Amino acid sequence: MHILVTGGAGFLGRRLARAILARGTLAGPDDRQHPVARITLADVVAADLPDPRVSSLVGDLADPALLDRAFAGGVDSVFHLAAVVSGEAEANFDLGWRVNVDAMRALLERCRAPGTSPRFVFASSCAAFGGPLPARLPDDQMPVPQSSYGTQKVVGEYLVHDYTRKGFLDGRSLRLPTVTVRPGKPNKAASSFASGIVREPLAGVESVCPVAPETKMWLTSPATVVDNLIAGHEAPASAFGHTRSVNLPGISVTVRQMVDALRRVAGDAVADRVTWKRDPAIERIVLTWPADFEAKLARALGMRADADFESIVRAYVAESVRR
Amino acid sequence: MHILVTGGAGFLGRRLARAILARGTLAGPDDRQHPVARITLADVVAADLPDPRVSSLVGDLADPALLDRAFAGGVDSVFHLAAVVSGEAEANFDLGWRVNVDAMRALLERCRAPGTSPRFVFASSCAAFGGPLPARLPDDQMPVPQSSYGTQKVVGEYLVHDYTRKGFLDGRSLRLPTVTVRPGKPNKAASSFASGIVREPLAGVESVCPVAPETKMWLTSPATVVDNLIAGHEAPASAFGHTRSVNLPGISVTVRQMVDALRRVAGDAVADRVTWKRDPAIERIVLTWPADFEAKLARALGMRADADFESIVRAYVAESVRR
Repeated sequence: MHILVTGGAGFLGRRLARAILARGTLAGPDDRQHPVARITLADVVAADLPDPRVSSLVGDLADPALLDRAFAGGVDSVFHLAAVVSGEAEANFDLGWRVNVDAMRALLERCRAPGTSPRFVFASSCAAFGGPLPARLPDDQMPVPQSSYGTQKVVGEYLVHDYTRKGFLDGRSLRLPTVTVRPGKPNKAASSFASGIVREPLAGVESVCPVAPETKMWLTSPATVVDNLIAGHEAPASAFGHTRSVNLPGISVTVRQMVDALRRVAGDAVADRVTWKRDPAIERIVLTWPADFEAKLARALGMRADADFESIVRAYVAESVRR
Repeated sequence: MHILVTGGAGFLGRRLARAILARGTLAGPDDRQHPVARITLADVVAADLPDPRVSSLVGDLADPALLDRAFAGGVDSVFHLAAVVSGEAEANFDLGWRVNVDAMRALLERCRAPGTSPRFVFASSCAAFGGPLPARLPDDQMPVPQSSYGTQKVVGEYLVHDYTRKGFLDGRSLRLPTVTVRPGKPNKAASSFASGIVREPLAGVESVCPVAPETKMWLTSPATVVDNLIAGHEAPASAFGHTRSVNLPGISVTVRQMVDALRRVAGDAVADRVTWKRDPAIERIVLTWPADFEAKLARALGMRADADFESIVRAYVAESVRR
């Protein structure tokens, strides 16, 4: 099998690729396991993942030449992770629609062209939801996004829905919780702080939390979300109902509880590096996101949540030491 | 005020224009009534509506030159009725997405450009819904369309939602019931028969009903839906909640009840011109549509439903005589 991962040079893309390589196989259209012969990591920067089965493809997803190269020799499965992140899509309306919708549609068109109906795992987002919401969202909650990013993700889901219904591909739109702890540097996602308030203090750096301590979030660890992305790929088409959109499991945690967990794992000196200063631009986006989901379909598909935030911090610390 | 009506040469577009002319005024951004100085009916064919305030603009909505002409001198309100209809969008996937989404987006971009935030009334459709549904749909029912047409309408709604949220325009997406009785000829809408089974028999012509008699539909008369389109335009922005999508009121009627009403109005000889022959291609689309809605927001906005199907038939007969 040839697997294409967009946004493949990113943290999640590389982590997903490593997990797929470790498995060695993925489900094909016949629902049987087939050896993974090749993974292409497409991104705007080169992907650093030394493995003979992995190749890095650098360019703009909206560039037909890049897609020509990605689809040369056929593609059996796509994990579409590439996106303009939430804060950036809100600041730059045109860029968000161009990348998050137009470039995605060009990608879907390529999947349609050969008539092979590849599995297409789309990393959607819980930012699909906003406005007045119940405390715990059922699977059939109507998405009313309150950001351009969320709206673009919902439109992407409906594209996946229609391409799937027409048999052009076999799509699965997975609404990711906020992924934390991400290594590396802050990015322009409104949720960037959810990693920063753990990562920076552990690295001896102060971190400003831009939302109030009682702000509740729906969280997943990188390891768990990668497992769930693969579970979303592996599920047979028959396991889905009339929609291919799935709310992924997560844990519902306040920012204060996140810092408390950091304190228990790493001590006061580390946790005290978190300071609080509310940023209205970030709050305007983050406070519209729901913080608790039933995620019934996801669990039926074998997806899971982390045990608690403390275990997420511990796993991050353990991995940081190995790096 | 200058009002732009896309699909303006169509039956609904002309009827809407006549109703606006009869009113003489429409609400402006200040929520006050302003005289309608000009109506532009844009469509792929010329609009026949002789009135000094009305001009017909012929061309492709996706053509920038047409939009240049439509927006020359500014546009205060848009009624976007133009669409590739359901049956055609299902048969021609590319055409449907190009017209129903891409051309609509180009239109929204024009509204955004001058920074005047025009009211934008989008004729969406109850075809937004499909899959397993409650008997009576609440306003917050999640759209899971089972046709490309329905999916494109939902995507259009999310575009309107985001353009509105950003303040680029003041959008209102109205999900129209099946409109019957339409005069003229059958079209490629899967619901075309809902007019045909009344119109053709009254004209002395046989009509084949392609769905079973017990098929239930959500119906509106042309007069009522035009009133509701205008009510959707007139409502102040503050009357909407966190979404701009509105399920329009209608009446829930089986096809058998429709023919029975025709029988009561026009007699056995006329009603017996309806014959029954199920068409799987049409049933595949029509049977996914819901047939009953709560439509609470719509009623709060002053929208209304017809009394019953018999009154719809009587109104059609009365109007046919006048034509």
